[in-house]
Amino acid sequence: MDKLIKSDLYRYSKETGLKGLIKGLMIPGFRYVYFMRMSAKKSRFSIIGFFYWFLLRRYMFKYGFQIPASTQIGKGLYIGHFGVIVINEMTIIGDNCSITHNVTIGKTNRGTKKGCPVIDNEVWIGAGAVIVGKITIGSNVLIAPNAFVNFDIPSNSIVIGNPAIIIPDENATQAYNNSILEH
Amino acid sequence: MDKLIKSDLYRYSKETGLKGLIKGLMIPGFRYVYFMRMSAKKSRFSIIGFFYWFLLRRYMFKYGFQIPASTQIGKGLYIGHFGVIVINEMTIIGDNCSITHNVTIGKTNRGTKKGCPVIDNEVWIGAGAVIVGKITIGSNVLIAPNAFVNFDIPSNSIVIGNPAIIIPDENATQAYNNSILEH
Amino acid sequence: MDKLIKSDLYRYSKETGLKGLIKGLMIPGFRYVYFMRMSAKKSRFSIIGFFYWFLLRRYMFKYGFQIPASTQIGKGLYIGHFGVIVINEMTIIGDNCSITHNVTIGKTNRGTKKGCPVIDNEVWIGAGAVIVGKITIGSNVLIAPNAFVNFDIPSNSIVIGNPAIIIPDENATQAYNNSILEH
Repeated sequence: MDKLIKSDLYRYSKETGLKGLIKGLMIPGFRYVYFMRMSAKKSRFSIIGFFYWFLLRRYMFKYGFQIPASTQIGKGLYIGHFGVIVINEMTIIGDNCSITHNVTIGKTNRGTKKGCPVIDNEVWIGAGAVIVGKITIGSNVLIAPNAFVNFDIPSNSIVIGNPAIIIPDENATQAYNNSILEH
Repeated sequence: MDKLIKSDLYRYSKETGLKGLIKGLMIPGFRYVYFMRMSAKKSRFSIIGFFYWFLLRRYMFKYGFQIPASTQIGKGLYIGHFGVIVINEMTIIGDNCSITHNVTIGKTNRGTKKGCPVIDNEVWIGAGAVIVGKITIGSNVLIAPNAFVNFDIPSNSIVIGNPAIIIPDENATQAYNNSILEH
Repeated sequence: MDKLIKSDLYRYSKETGLKGLIKGLMIPGFRYVYFMRMSAKKSRFSIIGFFYWFLLRRYMFKYGFQIPASTQIGKGLYIGHFGVIVINEMTIIGDNCSITHNVTIGKTNRGTKKGCPVIDNEVWIGAGAVIVGKITIGSNVLIAPNAFVNFDIPSNSIVIGNPAIIIPDENATQAYNNSILEH
């Protein structure tokens, strides 16, 4: 199995064998991520590439996930529930992040923060959170549900509220970003 | 008709006969709740139980409702619109509550509030609200749209904002939790 | 082509010919708006009217858009992504507005603001925003993602937060409400 997909799968059940893969493909989050990774590797104009693209598109409407296959997302991506997730394809997301339903990561259209977020490793994003603009989110950051974030967040932080405030916390994502495949 | 389902149906149209049931089954909220109640009563390994489970799963994807049949929810549950609703199955919800689209009721993974909410009777939860952790929500509580609630709420309150504040109000849910079947 | 639909289509690609229409019908937002406009013009009891109504209903479930065809919405409506959008049919929306996924525009059930919003021209509503009650939103207003708005907003404002605050700005929607067909 592809290393990237192995690290994604491990996040769900700590399994990476064929049994784990079959179980994983029953979970909307992993299923979408699987076809997203496969689509990114193959041209849509090859037979297998078209098949991946076609299924990705089908699951996009079924689950509400609008995450383009071209988005730069590191290993170990975890999506817990299905539901509307919109990520602008110019967003960059690091390793071992978790994204929840109803999350939006988008573009700011004007001003000094015109652009899309760059998100580091081990960031957990709660239900309904919206993250926009050319901002940097550090590593080990927990973004609480329904937070609205349009400014830089340093590493090791909890972000909560609308407008959001930053609470420094060395254990920000402890018990949230689980089952990380090390190697 | 089952008493529980009768009380659910009454919330939509004040009707409980066959005509009311047929009309109710056209409404996504009642249709899902109907198959949720029926699934909870029958084993998935019986023919009729499998049929209920299969339809519940179908409507889960169609409407975005992720409310497990095993969740403890009292009589008279009202869901007004379809759209992503995620409820952790360890949540406990009382009688005559109303849940709106884009609502999440979930688990906190660490700390003193590790666990899921216990919600009393006649609670109305507005669009986009997120309620998490081992907290207690009293009866006759209106949770405003987009509120984020991670602490105890006393009975007879309006909860609004992110972070949320509590406004005591004896008539908190008046004109919101309607058509309650008394008996 | 119908003038109203032409103004909607122009918002997506600045094209209004047959090529633009075919491309537009691939976009969930325009496709829904197209069948919404067509349904509003024809009786559901005519053959063509039933066809429009049937497809509108289908796309309602596919995309999560719960915007009744009877809702008064001016020309040039733009919906960028698919995802749960709930608009009460008593809402009035002006010209050249933009509505994002996870937005709710709804009714307040009691008190002095009992009723639905009246929204003026060139209003942009961000992801997850909730707007309720008999309130007036002026023209050239940007409502930030996840804002909760239950009071009047003057023209030329940015609205942000929960509870929301008003920031006067003459260029509130600049670079947001694009591609407006003037004539």
